[in-house]
Amino acid sequence: MLVQGKTYRTIRFKDHQKNSIEIIDQRHLPHRFALETLSSSAEVIRAISEMQVRGAVLIGAAAAYGMVLATREAAREKNPNRYIHETAKQFKAARPTAVNLAWAVDRLEQAILVGNTPEERLTLAHTAANALVEAELVACRKIGENGLPILRALFEKRPRQPVNVLTHCNAGWLACVDYGTATAPIYAAHAAGIRVHVWVDETRPWNQGAKLTAWELAQQGIPHTLIADNTGGHLMQHGMVDLCIVGCDRATARGDVANKIGTYLKALAAKDNHVPFYVALPLSTFDLTLQDGIKEIPIEERGAEEVTKITGWTEKGFQTVHLAGPDTPAANYGFDVTPARLVTGLITEKGICAADSTTIQKLFA
Amino acid sequence: MLVQGKTYRTIRFKDHQKNSIEIIDQRHLPHRFALETLSSSAEVIRAISEMQVRGAVLIGAAAAYGMVLATREAAREKNPNRYIHETAKQFKAARPTAVNLAWAVDRLEQAILVGNTPEERLTLAHTAANALVEAELVACRKIGENGLPILRALFEKRPRQPVNVLTHCNAGWLACVDYGTATAPIYAAHAAGIRVHVWVDETRPWNQGAKLTAWELAQQGIPHTLIADNTGGHLMQHGMVDLCIVGCDRATARGDVANKIGTYLKALAAKDNHVPFYVALPLSTFDLTLQDGIKEIPIEERGAEEVTKITGWTEKGFQTVHLAGPDTPAANYGFDVTPARLVTGLITEKGICAADSTTIQKLFA
Repeated sequence: MLVQGKTYRTIRFKDHQKNSIEIIDQRHLPHRFALETLSSSAEVIRAISEMQVRGAVLIGAAAAYGMVLATREAAREKNPNRYIHETAKQFKAARPTAVNLAWAVDRLEQAILVGNTPEERLTLAHTAANALVEAELVACRKIGENGLPILRALFEKRPRQPVNVLTHCNAGWLACVDYGTATAPIYAAHAAGIRVHVWVDETRPWNQGAKLTAWELAQQGIPHTLIADNTGGHLMQHGMVDLCIVGCDRATARGDVANKIGTYLKALAAKDNHVPFYVALPLSTFDLTLQDGIKEIPIEERGAEEVTKITGWTEKGFQTVHLAGPDTPAANYGFDVTPARLVTGLITEKGICAADSTTIQKLFA
Repeated sequence: MLVQGKTYRTIRFKDHQKNSIEIIDQRHLPHRFALETLSSSAEVIRAISEMQVRGAVLIGAAAAYGMVLATREAAREKNPNRYIHETAKQFKAARPTAVNLAWAVDRLEQAILVGNTPEERLTLAHTAANALVEAELVACRKIGENGLPILRALFEKRPRQPVNVLTHCNAGWLACVDYGTATAPIYAAHAAGIRVHVWVDETRPWNQGAKLTAWELAQQGIPHTLIADNTGGHLMQHGMVDLCIVGCDRATARGDVANKIGTYLKALAAKDNHVPFYVALPLSTFDLTLQDGIKEIPIEERGAEEVTKITGWTEKGFQTVHLAGPDTPAANYGFDVTPARLVTGLITEKGICAADSTTIQKLFA
């Protein structure tokens, strides 16, 4: 997508030899657009755990590329297989909730271990990582195409008004490689001449909405309004939201969806106010080994200081300020689970489907 | 209640002559405990609109005391009645949602205008303001006594565990003159030896929870944990909340309640997870002229900069940082309305009652 009019992806190999990876360091947005080079698998793991890159699809893509670096590193090790396996484990432990991470790492590990020589393994790693990333790219584009009719139908009902979409967190192109998941139908609608306005939840405590979603929508010229996470229910009560679209970090076989903490509250408000609530996700985000998302999906707990302090921009650069007293205890759960009964539909690269076991099973047939 | 072990009220006349009012400037908490003197009705109006004092009961009390200052000022005016009436209007316009403000101002104005001489009017103003403030104080204490059995019953079910209460915003003693509304049953329970732990919603965008509720609970020695507003649904899904208690800024005749934005989302989650959801309020917070809270209660809209920027504490003092890009549009609705159907009960100074017209009517009989 566009950054200051120029096309970017969130991640790419920097050189033809694939010795290093270039990412957008998302911790500095929207105040500074900074690219960063990662030259080892350890650096990629740290970039994932410290949220320089984040979002289910993007951390899968970063781990796939990181496993290519690990393959090269393994050639210098006494026990390359063990190195690859240990590195794969470290990748998977970097963030626990999004299933795309483990999915990508497992696929890469399997592909790599088929090779006999270091050169063969490197070629296999390259091919597998590229295939995975390109497939995710196509999946996101298709999520856009498949979600477009929902926005078109709402627009045609009231063609003089923009379609008001509420989204939570950032499931935009910054969370993927390009297009985004939740934003893909919005970008597709905008390109098709449909007027869209997006209510952007700021998404405490990490503020992905305020930092990332608002910024990426502005870069593509999509009208939007930033709101505190508390606001969505009021807007829905007053008919100011036509549609919710959110992303997903892990979906179960029966259609329960883990997404950024607070998503469940918006799904409840949508249900209470008859607002359609869609979840956009590629098939790689399904974990068909799980049924009951609330009981079974592991929820990441992060540091209390992400709640008690915040870093923002001042004339003198970034500054961290205390929001609470120095001894205030805080808890920081990263995700919550929205039960399938609150989900109007799942927008996938294979089409829109209901959030139930039978329909989901057919996606994978 | 206690501040560093010493007893305070949130507001008092500073001198025997009632020429000035002393308040706690709540904008500096929890980082600095600062008292401020207000010496004119205009200063009191500004303190209300700029949220140096906030909370339904406290802004009512501040306006009552402020009308005493206005009465003295009126004596120096050519047209004292007009001055009193204009000042009353300005008080009522300072914050639109909480009904206690208009209620207190109207009561004071009526009391004042009965007097014929400036001295008589000043005496009447003093008496009326004191009566109003003392009545609110007693109401809050009784809300505590009336809410206590709810916490006791929960504690007796599982006596080794603390009762986990979730609250939103600050309906503590800082929002009142003393005791608080939502916190009054918590303080009463704590005093009665019942173990309580409070989940404190930070309450964006103004962060009354992070700044005020966490601080006042800490000062009274009540265990608590600060959370992002997004978190409550997840906690309730996992059985980590036994009870919600919130305050109220205006309740209608049928029991719809306006409270800080985001309250409605917590009420939905409580309903979905069978967690009791109580609203604590004195009778002064009812507006019996209204029925449908969503349609009829005016919702304050505040400046976008309260969403896009935040002020916090650093080693060098207070610092304001940008949370969003400089051109990001934002909306800032201060309150939302929770429909009566989501309210388990109303805790008032006259007892606990159901949120329905017939029961509410009996409170006023």
